[in-house]
Amino acid sequence: MSQSDGMNYAPKGKPNPVVGLGEFQFAVAAMDHGHIHGQVNGLVEAGATLKWVYDKNDPAKAKDMAEKFDATVADSLDQILADDEIKLVAAAAIPNERAPLGIQCMEAGKDYFTDKTPLLTLEQLDAVKETISKTGRKYMVYYSERLHVESAMFATELIEEGAIGKVLSVTGFGPHRHGPAGSRPDWFYNRQQYGGILVDIGSHQLEQFLAYTGAKDGKIVSANVGNFGNPDFPEFEDYGDAMIVGDNGTTFYYQVHWFTPDGSKAWGDGRTFITGTDGYIELRKYINVGTDEGGDTVILVNQKGTQKLNVAGKVGYKYFGALILDCINRTENAMSQDHALKAAELCVRCQMAANNLTPATLTG
Amino acid sequence: MSQSDGMNYAPKGKPNPVVGLGEFQFAVAAMDHGHIHGQVNGLVEAGATLKWVYDKNDPAKAKDMAEKFDATVADSLDQILADDEIKLVAAAAIPNERAPLGIQCMEAGKDYFTDKTPLLTLEQLDAVKETISKTGRKYMVYYSERLHVESAMFATELIEEGAIGKVLSVTGFGPHRHGPAGSRPDWFYNRQQYGGILVDIGSHQLEQFLAYTGAKDGKIVSANVGNFGNPDFPEFEDYGDAMIVGDNGTTFYYQVHWFTPDGSKAWGDGRTFITGTDGYIELRKYINVGTDEGGDTVILVNQKGTQKLNVAGKVGYKYFGALILDCINRTENAMSQDHALKAAELCVRCQMAANNLTPATLTG
Repeated sequence: MSQSDGMNYAPKGKPNPVVGLGEFQFAVAAMDHGHIHGQVNGLVEAGATLKWVYDKNDPAKAKDMAEKFDATVADSLDQILADDEIKLVAAAAIPNERAPLGIQCMEAGKDYFTDKTPLLTLEQLDAVKETISKTGRKYMVYYSERLHVESAMFATELIEEGAIGKVLSVTGFGPHRHGPAGSRPDWFYNRQQYGGILVDIGSHQLEQFLAYTGAKDGKIVSANVGNFGNPDFPEFEDYGDAMIVGDNGTTFYYQVHWFTPDGSKAWGDGRTFITGTDGYIELRKYINVGTDEGGDTVILVNQKGTQKLNVAGKVGYKYFGALILDCINRTENAMSQDHALKAAELCVRCQMAANNLTPATLTG
Repeated sequence: MSQSDGMNYAPKGKPNPVVGLGEFQFAVAAMDHGHIHGQVNGLVEAGATLKWVYDKNDPAKAKDMAEKFDATVADSLDQILADDEIKLVAAAAIPNERAPLGIQCMEAGKDYFTDKTPLLTLEQLDAVKETISKTGRKYMVYYSERLHVESAMFATELIEEGAIGKVLSVTGFGPHRHGPAGSRPDWFYNRQQYGGILVDIGSHQLEQFLAYTGAKDGKIVSANVGNFGNPDFPEFEDYGDAMIVGDNGTTFYYQVHWFTPDGSKAWGDGRTFITGTDGYIELRKYINVGTDEGGDTVILVNQKGTQKLNVAGKVGYKYFGALILDCINRTENAMSQDHALKAAELCVRCQMAANNLTPATLTG
């Protein structure tokens, strides 16, 4: 088919580094989740310089990363926090340790950039907010399923340009591959540590809801979790979904699970559907299933026509450069603190409201 | 890509007519909705013989159909109801008249085959159930978005064969094209007559929920309607969505609206997503958006591989032959009466529970 049909929506090109070598130095303070590699890559590509790497649980991981980025393994977290050249601490700790670590970093005068989910409870949220207020530091979050996915960043622009009119509703599918049962670290199966599926991988979804609909808050009208395939790990939730009504009359449904089948070529067939008054957008984020195409397929159908774009390598990840500049200039162009924490709050509230679909299996 | 990857799921072929000419005679009693053409085509292809056609509102429509199928225009509904050769009355009346017409037909000893939505209120549901109980007749429903869509019928078989394990959740998108505002008949915009979007085009969705999940009942946990683009028709709902939790622990989200943009090649990009413990199915029912392919694309991803099938012309519509045989043999192989009416009940309950997303615009 014609890829244009009279439309002219196209990626504007990838952003450049925003600072020179050594101008913005950061450290890594926890590497429990592999997302830390994405966090560091994003920052380094935007011009940041990695100075220190530390991981209390696995020094070998820290050593590998330090070698890769010409950084130094720190002896302790304190060594990082005591270094005045460090403006930002990036970390992907075990989920229940993310807020305490962030509070410690902010109290030492550093901005903090944590893997999602940024926190697990309303108590942690309150403590984080209090520390932000007291220190003036930033508690930023790596919501990678939008910020580090080119199709998802492109959709953000399309909506801002009015390509589909007023957004009415968003639907998000965030399936993940579990791998062999028991193959993950212990904390992955421990409810107190990972928090539950809606607050964990669900956190990406809530951020996308706020970003795409423009809602500033939302009411959780349904939330469900279940353990349908992992009876040996009773605290593990392998399925979850929820529905939210936004404060601006938009709606949102999302589904997350760990049932990506072996026959899928992707770790998850992540999708986002955005319905507007003048058209719709579908994102096939990591695979265009049933074809040989990879990810970052954007389908835009509006009053002017139908456009199918593959934006891989064409959009880039402007979040990271904007985050560096926000840290330097004390602005909020990458993402507002309110937005980052409202997404966190909503995923915590979803988890708290969750109805257990498999009461015989799940404890938690 | 390989279309098989070691799998062997494929359509079994189209069903044949189940009766000979004249063996099963039926009549058409109302033609307000164009679905009546699909209802008649389905029955005739399965071997039924159309004897009478009647439409109180538009005799020209009746005449055209009678000519096409070598049938006779009836002078009145009574003429049809008095004819002992007529076993079944098919009708697509204005929605609020469907139940009264069906009750009249059943009381005259005929089975009834109505367009969806079959009824609009719980009072109509009770009256229908009472008449079924009293007369022993059938009140069957043309839930066309599954019964008359080959990909949707093929998905029914895939699930029965266990192709994706235990079904956990279904998501349905049922967008429709409105056309120029005001171009539809008056009843289309009249709330009392069409019933609301969740009970009208939403009824297809509830039937698919029951069929694909195997749930026998469900709890409506959220339902929303709105009028976002048609302020001149204040009783018209152009957007609706709802979420249901089934009595077997499955979940269902669906979204229906009248915002198919002009740039879409289809009247609606209808989709169904079925998530199971061992895989998932996606149906692209009327168009494979962003390609030149038409409808009836089935994507099956399970433990064995990824299969993309186009089943148009390969599956057929077994419902209609089964319905004819059910009428003859008093069986319930096409669809049970409970199933048909539970879908109706749930869509009525969704409509009753609906939260109005645009309170300033909508009345009703």
